[in-house]
Amino acid sequence: MTDLSAPPFSSRHIGPSEPEQLRMLEAVGFESVADLVAVAVPEAIRAKDRLKLPAAIGEAEAIAELRALAGRNRVLTSMIGLGYYDTVTPGVIRRNLLENPGWYTAYTPYQPEISQGRLEALLNFQTVVSDLTGLPVAGASLLDEGTAAAEAMTLARRAGKSKSDVFVVDADALPQTKAVLATRAEPLGITLVEHDLDGELPECFGLLVQYPGASGRLRDFRAVAAAAHEAGALVVAAADLLALTLVAAPGELGADIAIGSSQRFGVPFGFGGPHAAYMSVREGLQRQLPGRLVGVSVDADGDPAYRLALQTREQHIRREKATSNICTAQVLLAVIAGMYAVYHGPEGLRGIGHRVHRHATALAEGLRGGGVEIVHGEFFDTVLARVPGRAAAVVAAAAERGVNLWQVDADHVSVACDEKTGAAELAQVWAAFGVSAAVAPEDAPDALPADLLRESPYLTHPVFHSHRSETAMLRYLRKLQDKDIALDRSMIPLGSCTMKLNATTEMEPITWPEFAAIHPYAPDDQSEGYRELIGTLEGWLAEVTGYDAVSIQPNAGSQGEFAGLLAIRAYHRANGHGERDVCLIPSSAHGTNAASAIMAGMRVVVVACDSDGNVDLADLDAKIDKHRDALAAIMVTYPSTHGVYEETITEVCAKVHEAGGQVYVDGANLNALVGLAKPGEFGADVSHLNLHKTFCIPHGGGGPGVGPVAVRAHLAGYLPGHPLHNGTPVGPVSAAPYGSAGILPISWAYVRMMGADGLTAATEQAILSANYLARRLAPHYPVLYTGRGGLVAHECIVDLRQITKETGVTVDDVAKRLIDYGFHAPTMSFPVAGTLMIEPTESEDLNELDRFVDAMIAIRGEIAKVASGDYDKTDNPLRNAPHTAEAVTADEWPHPYSRSEAAYPLPSLRDGKYWVPVRRIDQAYGDRNLVCSCPPLEAYED
Amino acid sequence: MTDLSAPPFSSRHIGPSEPEQLRMLEAVGFESVADLVAVAVPEAIRAKDRLKLPAAIGEAEAIAELRALAGRNRVLTSMIGLGYYDTVTPGVIRRNLLENPGWYTAYTPYQPEISQGRLEALLNFQTVVSDLTGLPVAGASLLDEGTAAAEAMTLARRAGKSKSDVFVVDADALPQTKAVLATRAEPLGITLVEHDLDGELPECFGLLVQYPGASGRLRDFRAVAAAAHEAGALVVAAADLLALTLVAAPGELGADIAIGSSQRFGVPFGFGGPHAAYMSVREGLQRQLPGRLVGVSVDADGDPAYRLALQTREQHIRREKATSNICTAQVLLAVIAGMYAVYHGPEGLRGIGHRVHRHATALAEGLRGGGVEIVHGEFFDTVLARVPGRAAAVVAAAAERGVNLWQVDADHVSVACDEKTGAAELAQVWAAFGVSAAVAPEDAPDALPADLLRESPYLTHPVFHSHRSETAMLRYLRKLQDKDIALDRSMIPLGSCTMKLNATTEMEPITWPEFAAIHPYAPDDQSEGYRELIGTLEGWLAEVTGYDAVSIQPNAGSQGEFAGLLAIRAYHRANGHGERDVCLIPSSAHGTNAASAIMAGMRVVVVACDSDGNVDLADLDAKIDKHRDALAAIMVTYPSTHGVYEETITEVCAKVHEAGGQVYVDGANLNALVGLAKPGEFGADVSHLNLHKTFCIPHGGGGPGVGPVAVRAHLAGYLPGHPLHNGTPVGPVSAAPYGSAGILPISWAYVRMMGADGLTAATEQAILSANYLARRLAPHYPVLYTGRGGLVAHECIVDLRQITKETGVTVDDVAKRLIDYGFHAPTMSFPVAGTLMIEPTESEDLNELDRFVDAMIAIRGEIAKVASGDYDKTDNPLRNAPHTAEAVTADEWPHPYSRSEAAYPLPSLRDGKYWVPVRRIDQAYGDRNLVCSCPPLEAYED
Repeated sequence: MTDLSAPPFSSRHIGPSEPEQLRMLEAVGFESVADLVAVAVPEAIRAKDRLKLPAAIGEAEAIAELRALAGRNRVLTSMIGLGYYDTVTPGVIRRNLLENPGWYTAYTPYQPEISQGRLEALLNFQTVVSDLTGLPVAGASLLDEGTAAAEAMTLARRAGKSKSDVFVVDADALPQTKAVLATRAEPLGITLVEHDLDGELPECFGLLVQYPGASGRLRDFRAVAAAAHEAGALVVAAADLLALTLVAAPGELGADIAIGSSQRFGVPFGFGGPHAAYMSVREGLQRQLPGRLVGVSVDADGDPAYRLALQTREQHIRREKATSNICTAQVLLAVIAGMYAVYHGPEGLRGIGHRVHRHATALAEGLRGGGVEIVHGEFFDTVLARVPGRAAAVVAAAAERGVNLWQVDADHVSVACDEKTGAAELAQVWAAFGVSAAVAPEDAPDALPADLLRESPYLTHPVFHSHRSETAMLRYLRKLQDKDIALDRSMIPLGSCTMKLNATTEMEPITWPEFAAIHPYAPDDQSEGYRELIGTLEGWLAEVTGYDAVSIQPNAGSQGEFAGLLAIRAYHRANGHGERDVCLIPSSAHGTNAASAIMAGMRVVVVACDSDGNVDLADLDAKIDKHRDALAAIMVTYPSTHGVYEETITEVCAKVHEAGGQVYVDGANLNALVGLAKPGEFGADVSHLNLHKTFCIPHGGGGPGVGPVAVRAHLAGYLPGHPLHNGTPVGPVSAAPYGSAGILPISWAYVRMMGADGLTAATEQAILSANYLARRLAPHYPVLYTGRGGLVAHECIVDLRQITKETGVTVDDVAKRLIDYGFHAPTMSFPVAGTLMIEPTESEDLNELDRFVDAMIAIRGEIAKVASGDYDKTDNPLRNAPHTAEAVTADEWPHPYSRSEAAYPLPSLRDGKYWVPVRRIDQAYGDRNLVCSCPPLEAYED
Repeated sequence: MTDLSAPPFSSRHIGPSEPEQLRMLEAVGFESVADLVAVAVPEAIRAKDRLKLPAAIGEAEAIAELRALAGRNRVLTSMIGLGYYDTVTPGVIRRNLLENPGWYTAYTPYQPEISQGRLEALLNFQTVVSDLTGLPVAGASLLDEGTAAAEAMTLARRAGKSKSDVFVVDADALPQTKAVLATRAEPLGITLVEHDLDGELPECFGLLVQYPGASGRLRDFRAVAAAAHEAGALVVAAADLLALTLVAAPGELGADIAIGSSQRFGVPFGFGGPHAAYMSVREGLQRQLPGRLVGVSVDADGDPAYRLALQTREQHIRREKATSNICTAQVLLAVIAGMYAVYHGPEGLRGIGHRVHRHATALAEGLRGGGVEIVHGEFFDTVLARVPGRAAAVVAAAAERGVNLWQVDADHVSVACDEKTGAAELAQVWAAFGVSAAVAPEDAPDALPADLLRESPYLTHPVFHSHRSETAMLRYLRKLQDKDIALDRSMIPLGSCTMKLNATTEMEPITWPEFAAIHPYAPDDQSEGYRELIGTLEGWLAEVTGYDAVSIQPNAGSQGEFAGLLAIRAYHRANGHGERDVCLIPSSAHGTNAASAIMAGMRVVVVACDSDGNVDLADLDAKIDKHRDALAAIMVTYPSTHGVYEETITEVCAKVHEAGGQVYVDGANLNALVGLAKPGEFGADVSHLNLHKTFCIPHGGGGPGVGPVAVRAHLAGYLPGHPLHNGTPVGPVSAAPYGSAGILPISWAYVRMMGADGLTAATEQAILSANYLARRLAPHYPVLYTGRGGLVAHECIVDLRQITKETGVTVDDVAKRLIDYGFHAPTMSFPVAGTLMIEPTESEDLNELDRFVDAMIAIRGEIAKVASGDYDKTDNPLRNAPHTAEAVTADEWPHPYSRSEAAYPLPSLRDGKYWVPVRRIDQAYGDRNLVCSCPPLEAYED
């Protein structure tokens, strides 16, 4: 019988071909992948059975199945509001940004020289937020409006002067915001008090005002803000960016902090996400800002250059002293929102705001004319109608007419207008209310409070005035994209980040209207396809990890961690062990771990690691002994953050269990386990996964991410809930019930097309590739940690400390010099300072791996020249890297090495050289001279 | 009443904003666009009324209307075959090539230095064709299989030794091929003879063999080829590329020429097109090859570089001596087909061929087992079943099961398997035949003739072995894209080519399955949406041009011209004036005009132009007098190819009409007329349009194009027909009934979103922009032709002849130097040698126009330095342009001017400089040393 089967998708996902794999095995010294894995992966943790997943299907079949699922979602006009509004993603932005791997496969801009394009795009976003909110410093996005509100709450607590534990929440705040605040407040000992903001303000350290309110009501909060300030409390405004094009900025009304969603700036519903939340703060609070902040600095030539500012705030540096566990942002979505503003400009945005408002007022007029009572006289886009006893009927009638409204209670319906609302939609809504009306928006009066009208200008920077034609916009996007290195140019060998293929077939469905255009609160009969997809994916993830239940709600790894720790906490409490609050964390852990533990109300106790980076069992015993009765959990990463399969993991789990603790295994390195070992089987109770690592959701330049939490059965009852769904003892950790549902088709497609064999083969190849790199690099650079057989797991650490000592050439120099060779640097100085951690992933073919090794070896040769004195100690290609085209073509060449050594150290670079747009960036300068919105053009003058 | 209207799409399509427009008007010296147009456009031709088109709608609304139209197409599985086969477009190719403006907005690679990416891609395509057909020289694509067959026929006639007028066509050739051959043969006096190839071969100059036949039959044509050769005839094989992965190459069987379609290499049905046809020829025929041919040459450094080879064959050079009017190719589609082969490699393609074949043999086995007679025992993918009296019923039963089969006649059904055919499809087909079968393709025997099995290797070049993972493929596409300049980087100011915006909203629908996956011969009830869209578009085009009827069948401007002339010819004949065969053509005409006239059986008589480029009326009178009784037509371009509105056009029309001739107005410059004047109203009888110029179909790097023919009522009966539709006196000019139907949604969306006002505003802006450029450039370069008020139409010609005489700096030097400034050159030396013709189009904003002017002025300054002796006469930045990064960063800089003068002559270039990948290419070297398939890697060694 002939084999007629088509090559599986896995042969496209996995880089090396079979012959290449054999050559790699030979280099590593094994005859087969099975032999390699048998040595590398401890027998104790090996999964007993093959994964139970449906047989893999091809790309065309997967698209067909996804189309069938999509067909079970029904796209109605959603005028539900509550933080989610329909919007038009300009085609030029959808195609050339959201659907463009040059943008979506990029990594977080920690290497700023190769990230100038997306950093500029983020600076645009920050400028939009800062201008519209009237607050000078805006961050580069947060995860969603609910978590942004929670971040603002904790910011207010640590920055404010009040000793109160009370945080006052506007009774008219969004329901999901209230719920996320509650989840986050309780472990921190914060008391939430709802308040209608009319009476006297309770004593509090902070106050959140929804502006406009969830009910649509728009009101001046100056008085309550003043009262709060008087009491030493900080004021947070949760504001709608589109409304701010017409009404006074929160900063002008007394807000210290503004937060909100930028979703309606061109980002589709996606059944709840991903969307970029924003936060801006007044002068003086910038060093308290959670999440990433883009700032302007200068490069080695003194030219302006962008980079992440004030990074010392971040959890990966502050660890348990961090005040937020925010790691992933929503870069891709923030970039879209920023570009939406660039494309429309201030007059365009104001026009959209005005149209939306007038449609709302026309709607209200029409309803009033038909005898329907309108509750609030002043509103922006949302009309709250009182229809005693008829609310359900009105909503049902609207749905029959293709429009989703929101039933507030039995007597009230709210209707939110948006950018897409037109005469046809108004007619349907009026009809659903049983009203015959024909009010033209042009004739309707405004319903904005006179003293709230916006007078201050916004978006005055030229970037918001220069890209009004589609052609100009297209070229701007292309220009920025071309400045950056993403996966569409070369491998991104970032240890711990798993930069693997984001296949087109995985990506295509997310912009189909049937997935993109579903409101998170649309009735269930409109989201059957989504919910089946989600349920299936959760089941597959449970199978892959060996757990019993999974929630995909957490929209970042950090949120998954937090949710996992909340589950542990709730479990202990339910068992009468509320006193268990110690969380053990090895010294090698991701910084997020510690920050999450703090947020979950735990005390962090650090466990030492031995010189190989493994958990020090003696110290573990000591710490368990010391904290036995208070022991809540241990958080370990597996394979370890050092890229090694620790032999002792089962022992660690047993020791903690024996002491009554729970075991949290951080799933960051799951790409080394899938198909070979299951944390839920080898001793862990809970894990989070990073779908944007192991399961192919692209990094988007720093988000979106999805961080599902997976638990064993005894914890299943403590997964995150949602106020609009059936509750659980644990509240929501994300604003939307299913988190970033809109990108889950990516991971679904990946698992569906890989199947058990494909997933396992991917893991095996990832291990082989890391060991191949380790073997090829070892003669040139010491490889720091290895496990059994001298093998690493899916990444390897090369140690530059001795080199630095001997030659002065630093990790930074090597990383920046790699840019001249066309590569993104590996992870720098994590988990060990002075080292580079390299993770090739399974998706890189042998040619690319060899190209990278060739570059590293060539750089080692350059280092040798520094050592030998052939290169000057300070004026050499390493120290001066990266080299821009401007520098290498300059009329004067002041360096003792040649131009061709600078630009083309390897002949292969002559075909398709990447030219970095700026020279090495001065980080300190930018922090000393903080500029976080678009700098004036004069800044660029020579 | 407030204006709440959203900015119209036209404000995105048209580059300059209103304030910019006012500044441009001021520069040109007018107060309003109306004033400018009143002077520029002769009153005599001005349209009386506003265009009658539906009111413009926004982008979201247009998408919604297109979705509704798409919804009226029904996507079934089409196993119809007949030259069109279902295929899987790999996602990575669809997204990063077909849906990527970096590829689809590029122009024909006449400027090879900025086209190395697509030239390499085309060389891959040529290598695929050459390897698979076993013939050494393959062209860079033809329009479709039918016209490729016609081109092969005329090639055989001019290259062969036989004096016969007979061309023999395989009776088993595709029906559309036969029909196109008939259309093309008759005016040239060629007699077509159908023959079953079994008996004795008639005397002939050429023979076309379909391999495999339309009926599926696969047979060895060695004997008949030998007989043809013996009689001095050439042998054309119309071959299926996928079949050639398994069976002997046509070149091995005696074919001199191979033609066919590459559609099934990843290009969707598109209801018939666009698809790339191919042609390859044996050694000795390469100078006879119609259409474009990519070859390898060297650049100024002696490095390998690609460019179009043997361009002296082309119609724009040979004019009436041309033997083909082929101008546009199908570059984008050829690139897709080539990339499909790159991605699958030889073993992948063979695997696909094998799967397709085995599904066909399994199908046949199953049918035979069920008692159905299978007509041919030897076949590749198509099974011809004999079902006496039952054919219609079987086809209907299959359609009910979601599968389209082909009813050959009352007694025969044919079923074509393709890449997507699987067990499910076979089951449906068996069931439709009323057969219960379950033959597995793995168990089915082969049905290939033993002596036709392919033994020769193919695709041995490394490019077909190095991009097997999606990641590798993605990077290869990106690398090639980055080498080129397309509209996503900068304006392409090509006179006569109208490189305007190809908006995303126009482009998105063409890859929706409901448009992409419809077979051209699918039953009418599956293409209602398509046919309504086509009918509407034809009506709009008639309204825009002032004609009474339009056919969108011609899939290139050249085919539209040919169809228009055939209509004139048929009209004269129907009126008893078969003797009218003289076609007057002004000396300034596009070369295609003359070539088309010859193909339509006319004699070309050239009419002189005066020194302003206008038709010389005295000479026109003389020529009319001389040829009065034989006068068939005049072909003029309006505005003239000199970019001027000739005042005398109505007079020209009247004179020709008076003499009994018809007036053909070439619509190449329609972008200067839309909304302002209508050829059908001001005196013309017929025109062709270029939808890829005026109506936003992208140029695709040199195709696809669409060239509708538009006629007044008296010619409406002579528009192209199609054998599968109701016939007309004139046969088809394209293989598919609706030509390149798959891309018509682009033009539909453009007209729908622009409306009458938007289209007119675009024309006005195009005129204003051209005049703005002319005014700004005039102080620096003489502007050659102007009309009334010193104005040009939509393009302007700058004259370098005096400059060249004085300084030695040529048009070529300026064009290549523009590359260093980041621009594609304007049209060179057409219509006047030594000049540059610049067409800005309405889509470029003022900033880009000024950027271009700044570059031209800076270049003029460089020329002045050559004149003054500040620059060396031969070693200067102009002569050495373009400058690669390698050249400017070289350790040795041998030139008397500086590196920064070479690379950054303007400061603005320092942000996002385009680096050309090769230096100036030696055209002659490549023609002397013809290499037209992928060169071995050693060619690239330093």
